[in-house]
Amino acid sequence: MSKADYQSSQLYKIRHSLSHVMAQAVLEMFPTGKIAIGPPIEDGFYYDFDLPRPLTPDDLTNLEKRMRNIVKQKHTFHRRELSAAEAKELFADQPYKIELIEGLEAGGVDEYGEPTDEPPVISTYKHDTFEDLCKGPHVDHLGQINPNAFKLLKTAGAYWRGDEKRQQLQRIYGTAWENPENLQTYLHRLAEAEKRDHRRLGKELDLFSTEADMLGGGLVLWHPKGGLMRHLAEEFCRREHLAKGYDLVYSPHIGKSTLWETSGHLDFYQDSMYAPLDIEGQAYYLKPMNCPFHILMYKDRLRSYRDLPIRMAEWGTVYRFERSGVLHGLLRVRGFTQDDAHHFVQPDKMPEEIDFVLNFCLHILRSFGFADFQAYLSTRPEGDKAVGDPAQWHDAEKALEAALQRAEIPYDIDPGGGAFYGPKIDLKINDALGREWQLSTIQFDFNLPERFDMTYIGEDGQPHRPYMVHRALLGSMERFFGVLIEHYAGAFPVWLSPVQAVLIPIADRHGSYCERVAERLTAAGLRVEVDTGSERMGNKIRLAQQQKIPYMLVVGDKEQAANQVSVRLRSGEDLGPQDIAAFEKMALETVKNKT
Amino acid sequence: MSKADYQSSQLYKIRHSLSHVMAQAVLEMFPTGKIAIGPPIEDGFYYDFDLPRPLTPDDLTNLEKRMRNIVKQKHTFHRRELSAAEAKELFADQPYKIELIEGLEAGGVDEYGEPTDEPPVISTYKHDTFEDLCKGPHVDHLGQINPNAFKLLKTAGAYWRGDEKRQQLQRIYGTAWENPENLQTYLHRLAEAEKRDHRRLGKELDLFSTEADMLGGGLVLWHPKGGLMRHLAEEFCRREHLAKGYDLVYSPHIGKSTLWETSGHLDFYQDSMYAPLDIEGQAYYLKPMNCPFHILMYKDRLRSYRDLPIRMAEWGTVYRFERSGVLHGLLRVRGFTQDDAHHFVQPDKMPEEIDFVLNFCLHILRSFGFADFQAYLSTRPEGDKAVGDPAQWHDAEKALEAALQRAEIPYDIDPGGGAFYGPKIDLKINDALGREWQLSTIQFDFNLPERFDMTYIGEDGQPHRPYMVHRALLGSMERFFGVLIEHYAGAFPVWLSPVQAVLIPIADRHGSYCERVAERLTAAGLRVEVDTGSERMGNKIRLAQQQKIPYMLVVGDKEQAANQVSVRLRSGEDLGPQDIAAFEKMALETVKNKT
Repeated sequence: MSKADYQSSQLYKIRHSLSHVMAQAVLEMFPTGKIAIGPPIEDGFYYDFDLPRPLTPDDLTNLEKRMRNIVKQKHTFHRRELSAAEAKELFADQPYKIELIEGLEAGGVDEYGEPTDEPPVISTYKHDTFEDLCKGPHVDHLGQINPNAFKLLKTAGAYWRGDEKRQQLQRIYGTAWENPENLQTYLHRLAEAEKRDHRRLGKELDLFSTEADMLGGGLVLWHPKGGLMRHLAEEFCRREHLAKGYDLVYSPHIGKSTLWETSGHLDFYQDSMYAPLDIEGQAYYLKPMNCPFHILMYKDRLRSYRDLPIRMAEWGTVYRFERSGVLHGLLRVRGFTQDDAHHFVQPDKMPEEIDFVLNFCLHILRSFGFADFQAYLSTRPEGDKAVGDPAQWHDAEKALEAALQRAEIPYDIDPGGGAFYGPKIDLKINDALGREWQLSTIQFDFNLPERFDMTYIGEDGQPHRPYMVHRALLGSMERFFGVLIEHYAGAFPVWLSPVQAVLIPIADRHGSYCERVAERLTAAGLRVEVDTGSERMGNKIRLAQQQKIPYMLVVGDKEQAANQVSVRLRSGEDLGPQDIAAFEKMALETVKNKT
Repeated sequence: MSKADYQSSQLYKIRHSLSHVMAQAVLEMFPTGKIAIGPPIEDGFYYDFDLPRPLTPDDLTNLEKRMRNIVKQKHTFHRRELSAAEAKELFADQPYKIELIEGLEAGGVDEYGEPTDEPPVISTYKHDTFEDLCKGPHVDHLGQINPNAFKLLKTAGAYWRGDEKRQQLQRIYGTAWENPENLQTYLHRLAEAEKRDHRRLGKELDLFSTEADMLGGGLVLWHPKGGLMRHLAEEFCRREHLAKGYDLVYSPHIGKSTLWETSGHLDFYQDSMYAPLDIEGQAYYLKPMNCPFHILMYKDRLRSYRDLPIRMAEWGTVYRFERSGVLHGLLRVRGFTQDDAHHFVQPDKMPEEIDFVLNFCLHILRSFGFADFQAYLSTRPEGDKAVGDPAQWHDAEKALEAALQRAEIPYDIDPGGGAFYGPKIDLKINDALGREWQLSTIQFDFNLPERFDMTYIGEDGQPHRPYMVHRALLGSMERFFGVLIEHYAGAFPVWLSPVQAVLIPIADRHGSYCERVAERLTAAGLRVEVDTGSERMGNKIRLAQQQKIPYMLVVGDKEQAANQVSVRLRSGEDLGPQDIAAFEKMALETVKNKT
C-alpha cells in the first residue's frame, strides 16, 4: 500500500483513534500527566507522555483494559475548529500542546510540529471526555474498532521533538488491526522477526559486533565467523564478476577536496559527508562514494569505442554521516562496503547493457536464495532540477523498463522520483517473513560524465560522451548480511555456513575416529569441527542446533564399526546412519548447488 | 656492508674526495657560483650548488672532463683546524658555508648542518686550489682514485637544508668505484633498475596510477590489470590463510579517539597519524594500524586456553602520514593495505607458534617466486625504554632466533634494535638485481595486551595474559607489488599475469578459429585475448611482448588446418606448433605450479 493509500484507509483511522483513546486512558491513570503527540505509524500507533513515574509492563496491561472499556462505549468523534487563543485556553495545563499551538499559529508546521505548506488551521477531535489537538482523520465512532484487535506493545524513551537537548518523554507503542485474526498474524510475525533480529543472532552466532565502547557508532567489526561468511560471499561474487567481464579495481578511502568539488559531492552531498581532515594544508574527505575514483581511472588514458563497455567493480568501503539516533545494527551504519560497479557504455549499446546488468543482478541475488522480487522505476523529476538531455532520460527510462519487462520482474513506476542525475531501478526482495528490503540499484548518471568531461573516440574518430551507470547488487555487505541473517534466521545455506558439520562422539573412545572423519571431510573442502567437549551428546546436539550448524554427525560404536556417521539436521530431522562417502557427496552437492 | 663499515672504507673516501673535486670543477666553470654541501652517499656522492644558470647534460660531460684532469694531477689532501673567525674570513663570499660555520660555532650540528653530539671543531680539507669546510675523511691524494672509475649521473633540484621555503639549489649526482669494471657493473645495474622502475612499468602495463591531480599524493588507484593481479594474490593468500587456521576479519578505517588513547597510538604514534575528524563532537582517527580493532574482537567475549591460538588476519587498509617529498610510486605511500595478522597465544605455546608463522611466511613469499632471504633479529632496547618483563623478552628473542635457525634463514642480530614493545624479525628478500627489500615482519607485543587488559582463562581456571604477535607477510599490497614489478621487470609468473595468452591470427580468415580456441582456453580457466586489430603479425607480437604476455599463439593456415597454434614466449623463444590440448595442459600446469 502506498503512503497516500494508507493515510486514507480505515486502518489508519482506527490507529489514529486508538492513540487518542490511549491518551485518554493514560490521563485517567495519571491525571497530572502531560501529553505530547500521538500519530498512527506503520502497523500501529504511539503517543508520547511526560509522566510522574516510569511505566511498567503491568501499567500497559491496565491501560489496555481501560482502552477496551472506552472503545466498547462506542463514543463518537467530534471535530471543531478553534482560534489560537481558544486552543491555548483549552490546553492551558498541557505545555507541549501549547508549544504546538504556537507553532500552528506561526505557520509552516503541522500539529505534530512537522514542516507543512498547508494553511494553519487549528482543530481538535473530541470523543467522550477527551479532546485533543488534531487534524484527523478518525473513525466516525469507536464502534468501528474491534476491542480485541489492538494491543499495547512496549514503551521506549523519546525526546520531545526528537531533540536530545529537550525533555525525555515516555512513548507507548501499540498495534491495531481490523480484526483479531489480523492482530494475531501480526503478533506472530513480530515474534518471528524478534527471533530473527540480526543483532541478537549476530551476538549468539558470534558473527559481528557494533557496540564496543571504544569503536564508535555505526562501525562494524566482522568477527571470525561473520568475516568468513563475508569472504565466501565476496569470493563468489568476485569470481562471477570476472567471469562476466567486469574489471576489479581498488581505490583509496580518502580523496582531495578538488575531487569532490569536481564531482559535485561537496555541493549536493556534503550533509552526508564527514568533516575534512587536513594533510599538508590540503583538505581530504572520507569517500561517501567510489564513483569519482573510477572516473579518474577511466580518464587515465584515451578511450576508444573498442574499449567499451568498461565495467569497473569494487568492494569499496564508504563512509556516510548518520545521526547516532538512527544507527541500527548492520542495517543502518556509518561505514559500509558497497559491491559497487560503474558501467561506461556507448549510448546505442545501452539497452543491452541494462539487460545484462539486471540479469546479472538477479543471478547474484538468486544465488543467495532470494527469489521474490519487486522493482521500482523512478523517472525524471519535474521542472529544471534534472540535469541532462530529456531525450536521453527518455531512452534511459525506456531501457530500464524494457529490461524489467524482459526479466519478468513486477514493477511500479515512481513518476518524477529519479535523482536529479538520472532515472533508476531499485530492486527489492521479499524475505522469509514477507518483509520488503531494498538491496540493489541500477542508476543512470548524466551528471558525472559531464562534470569530469569524460569522452571516448567513436567509430567516426570524434570524441563522444559515454553513458554511465552506477549499480550495486547486494547493496552493501553490511546491510545485505543484516537481511541475510533475518531471512534465514541464522540457519544459512550450507555453502555460507561458517561451520558446515560437527562430529559428535558419543563417548571418548569415538574421538579418534571422529578426528579421522573430520580430516577426510576437511580435505574434501568442507568446514568441519569435532566437539570433544565433556558435555553429554544431547547437550552437544542442542549446542550445534543453537549454532545453526547444518549437519550434526553423531558417532557411537555402531557408526564407528560400519564406517558411518548418523546424520542429524539443524531442523531436528534425523537422517539416520550414512556411509562417510555418501554424506560427503551429499554435502558437497548441497554446497555446489547453493541450496 | 654496515653503515659504520662503509664510512671507514676507502670507497667512502674516494667518493667524498670526488665531491670536492666536482665542486672545484664547478667553481672553475662558474667562478661566481656558491657551494652548499657535498657528502658521499650510497654508491656515490653529490654536491649542491647555487649557480647563475641551470646545468645542461653538456655541462656534466665538460665537468667530468675537468674532474678527470684534476684527479690525474694526484693532488694531496691537507687538513687544518680553524677558529670560526678564520673560517668566516676564508669563506667570506660563500654564504652557505658561513651559515654552516655559524651552526658549528653555536654547536650541536655538524658541517652538513645535521645534529651531532660531537664537540664543535671547524676543519677544512684542501687539495690543489680548492679548500672546503669538511671533517673528512678523504683519500691521502687523488692518485688513489682511478680517473676512469667515476661518472656524473644527473642533476636534480634540492632545497637548501631540505627546507621548501629556502633557496632551490642544483644538485649534481655522481657515482664512483674502485675500478672501471665495478663502475660498468654499477651502471649496468642502474640501467636495469631504470628499465624495471615500477612507476614506468605501472604506466606501460596499465597496472596502477598514483598521480592523478585530483587524487592526492600517496594514494593509489589500482587499474583493472593491477586490480586483477591484486585480486589473484589476495585470493591465493586468503585461501592459504584459511587452510592454515587463520580467521579472516574485517574492521573499519576510522576509530574513536578513546580507542587510540587506550592503545597508546595517540601518545607514541601521533606523528604518523592524520588529523582527527569530528563526528557529533567526538574525534575519530583514520587507522594507522589494525591491531586495536582485532583486540576489541578478542575482548568481545571471554576467552579460554582452549580457544588459543587465535589468529586474526585482515587485508586492512591503513593510513600513515608521509611528507609529500618522500612519496615514491607504490614503495612509499600514504594509504596501503597490509596483509596483517595478530596471533594471540598461550605463553608456553609461543615457540611453536613462531615456527608456524615463520614457515608460513616463507611459504607465501616462495609462492611469489622469492627464494633468497635475509633476516634481522632486533632485540630489547637498553635502559627503561622497553615495556614488559625482561624474562619474557628473553624467551621471545630465543623463540625468534630458534625459528630462524630451524628454517635455515641467514640472520643478523641488531642488539637493542627492537621496538619498545617487543623483539622482532624483519625478513628481507633479494630481488633479481640483488637488491634487498624488507617485506615481512614478525613482532612481539608486550604492550597492547597490558593496555587493553587482555586475558584468557587458563587450565587452572585463572585469568592469564596472552602473548600477542603482529605479523605481515607481503608487508603491504602496494609495496609488495612495487617490488614484484621490479623483480620480474613486469614479466610476471603466468598465474599472476593479467593476460596469459594472446591469439594472433595471421589473416582475417583465421579470426573465427582463434575465437574458438580462445573460448576453449577461457573455459579451461586461462585468461586469453584475441588480437583482432589491423596491425601486421610482427607488430602484434611486438605489442604482446611489450605487454609481457607469457604466451603468443600465432595462427595461420597450417595451424588452423592441424588444430594447432604456434607458441612463442615473451622472451622471444619460439616453441613452434603445438596441439591445442598440449598447450592447454602445459599452460595450466605452469599456472598450478606458480612457475
